[in-house]
Amino acid sequence: MEAALHDQKPRLHFWFDFASTYSYLSAMRIETVAGDRSVEVVWHPFLLGPIFKKQGWETSPFNLMPAKGRYMWRDMERQCEVLGLPLVAPDPFPQNSILAARLAHAGRNEPWIGEFVRAVFYSEFGAGLDIADPATLAGILMEVGADAKKVLAQAETMDIKIGLRAAVSEAETQGIFGAPSFVTQNGELFWGHDRLEQALDEALMMTD
Amino acid sequence: MEAALHDQKPRLHFWFDFASTYSYLSAMRIETVAGDRSVEVVWHPFLLGPIFKKQGWETSPFNLMPAKGRYMWRDMERQCEVLGLPLVAPDPFPQNSILAARLAHAGRNEPWIGEFVRAVFYSEFGAGLDIADPATLAGILMEVGADAKKVLAQAETMDIKIGLRAAVSEAETQGIFGAPSFVTQNGELFWGHDRLEQALDEALMMTD
Repeated sequence: MEAALHDQKPRLHFWFDFASTYSYLSAMRIETVAGDRSVEVVWHPFLLGPIFKKQGWETSPFNLMPAKGRYMWRDMERQCEVLGLPLVAPDPFPQNSILAARLAHAGRNEPWIGEFVRAVFYSEFGAGLDIADPATLAGILMEVGADAKKVLAQAETMDIKIGLRAAVSEAETQGIFGAPSFVTQNGELFWGHDRLEQALDEALMMTD
Repeated sequence: MEAALHDQKPRLHFWFDFASTYSYLSAMRIETVAGDRSVEVVWHPFLLGPIFKKQGWETSPFNLMPAKGRYMWRDMERQCEVLGLPLVAPDPFPQNSILAARLAHAGRNEPWIGEFVRAVFYSEFGAGLDIADPATLAGILMEVGADAKKVLAQAETMDIKIGLRAAVSEAETQGIFGAPSFVTQNGELFWGHDRLEQALDEALMMTD
């Protein structure tokens, strides 16, 4: 029993919104860099919209604050260049990410979840596809070996809709206000792609 | 003539507000890490208040968004621990930084400017002193070898008051919306202490 407990990998909870630019950077890298450190990723798709709305924001702060938005796109260009990722600004920005989030919530413990998350982000920010389009998402589901029809139907159930709403509440309870966010098993919160490595280091220190 | 031109060090423009927590991290390190790369620091004290006011913010966004504020203080604790810097949350936060900014603007080309900037930030965030208090600032000026009485009088002149206001306008023109910010000679803007090293690398590439 004790041996089994000690065999468990440390976990890092990864909170992301498919509409979030900097979540793209983390989503494309997290499973690789976590794997290098033998840390397990727990996938938490959620929505920033309801949290922003409580601030009185009806759209992304990058749209509300033009100087910050212009900076973000330039910074994303530079960061993507460093990481070797393509970047296409989706139109409209932000994309409506609710269906993608419901699908990821439905599949959050499936073996294809990591690949699905990466494929959605890549389609959106690497190829400029519309991730609000069910056809785009169906294609991605098939690509990653999921039962597309079944998962798309599941995403429309009350169970998944309520489950995703509960995930947003859980995010708020954990102090999350932006994405990407990382939470270690001892409750340390890290915000932003710039903190991914620090969050992984903290996750490793938390074993035992 | 050409030789002289090529002897010039590349410059990095450092924009900071004495009230800004993350500016503390950059201010304490920038002259050392820039020096390691033979980059010259150009000091740009400015005020975020007037820029925030245009967003409709009457105080720091860290006060307006409690979850973000709580996170920022925890993140600052962790970053300060990594950098070996003490951290005391000043009360009130943010501090009124206008007099400190006027003094730094008056002394921006003086040999003591770097030491003065570090001493103000350290007094505020390392020792919890009130940087709105002219006595605190007079002490710091004397400590760094400035003519305290003269510089304090200068800070009250229209020349310096207008000069600092012009610096805020210049910041906005350059696309600055937060602090710390770094601008290279070719106009690349980097925001946040997390981008200090990248900004220095860019500054180096821009020679010639």
